[in-house]
Amino acid sequence: MTPITDLTTLRDALRAFCAARDWHRYHTPKNLVMALSVEAAELVEHFQWATPEESLALAPEKHAEVADEIADVLIYLTELADVLGIDPIAAARHKIVKNAAKYPAPAR
Amino acid sequence: MTPITDLTTLRDALRAFCAARDWHRYHTPKNLVMALSVEAAELVEHFQWATPEESLALAPEKHAEVADEIADVLIYLTELADVLGIDPIAAARHKIVKNAAKYPAPAR
Amino acid sequence: MTPITDLTTLRDALRAFCAARDWHRYHTPKNLVMALSVEAAELVEHFQWATPEESLALAPEKHAEVADEIADVLIYLTELADVLGIDPIAAARHKIVKNAAKYPAPAR
Amino acid sequence: MTPITDLTTLRDALRAFCAARDWHRYHTPKNLVMALSVEAAELVEHFQWATPEESLALAPEKHAEVADEIADVLIYLTELADVLGIDPIAAARHKIVKNAAKYPAPAR
Repeated sequence: MTPITDLTTLRDALRAFCAARDWHRYHTPKNLVMALSVEAAELVEHFQWATPEESLALAPEKHAEVADEIADVLIYLTELADVLGIDPIAAARHKIVKNAAKYPAPAR
Repeated sequence: MTPITDLTTLRDALRAFCAARDWHRYHTPKNLVMALSVEAAELVEHFQWATPEESLALAPEKHAEVADEIADVLIYLTELADVLGIDPIAAARHKIVKNAAKYPAPAR
Repeated sequence: MTPITDLTTLRDALRAFCAARDWHRYHTPKNLVMALSVEAAELVEHFQWATPEESLALAPEKHAEVADEIADVLIYLTELADVLGIDPIAAARHKIVKNAAKYPAPAR
Repeated sequence: MTPITDLTTLRDALRAFCAARDWHRYHTPKNLVMALSVEAAELVEHFQWATPEESLALAPEKHAEVADEIADVLIYLTELADVLGIDPIAAARHKIVKNAAKYPAPAR
């Protein structure tokens, strides 16, 4: 397997992973957005009772769990973009241009 | 600004974007996971009444809206990983190894 | 229409509302949990950048918007429970007994 | 304790439950909407890979788990409405009137 070093190699690794398990039949956009939102909520769960300050100072074990949840969100997001034929980096680039027009930076 | 071509240049562009607007003070992990989950739900909203089949065949206008929502999720995920000092690609690589052990591929 | 004064009359009003619009065909549990999670996220959106203290002191207009979102969550929750044949009050009563066993109150 | 038979007695039971555990200090609206959205996602998780048809025919054990998740959503929704001084039934009644104006029933 090619090493995973960016979103393209991640996408390719996930294609191979799902093909080997015959999981593509479950991967409709409808199902993948559900899975993505569940993983996002697992991230929320780690922070729901924390103060904003506590949320910045995670214990090492918790930090590793949060990294795993970030990975899960990124994995489902990559799979969703793949079945829809969307390039996530191009989409983000496009959205930042829109955001810059919507929220102009104040003059300094 | 350096062109956005991968998660590292996206992270750097977002750092500059937020610094220019003094938004970093809002970007605690607690707030960012909330924003991330809201964007994930905006993705869900596009598919909530669709059949699985319909979810695979989006009209062009809807497809563009979904691309924007994918961008929003990726943007908040990148900002969250940044404030926590987590490399999302490394986290995904690590998680896929764990998933492969948890869900072995059937022999062919 | 019978006035809505509790969860039972709310359920009955929602049955009539959906029947008049032929919406029951969309109301599979899968679709309803998606709609419920979207409304929950719209609640989250009102509080994502607020400090915990600010979240306790809503401006009147915002308070009314939050009341509408609470209504939306309650509406979808009632419809979901209805299609699954679940009594939400009985379920809550049962869950509180379980929670009391799981989290015993400290002695005073 | 008064038996839980409706949303008012549920609210009162939850007040007593939290007071006995000194949990009110965690129950800011910001924290409660996070907890609510996490429970909504646990509902979603039960249905993410199911077809719409499968979602209508739950096995008994799964049905009981879903009832527990419905209870959790109702519990946090009741607590959120309580700290905000919102009557959920009145809010739903008000929202249904708005929805009826927004989505008129077709003539028969």
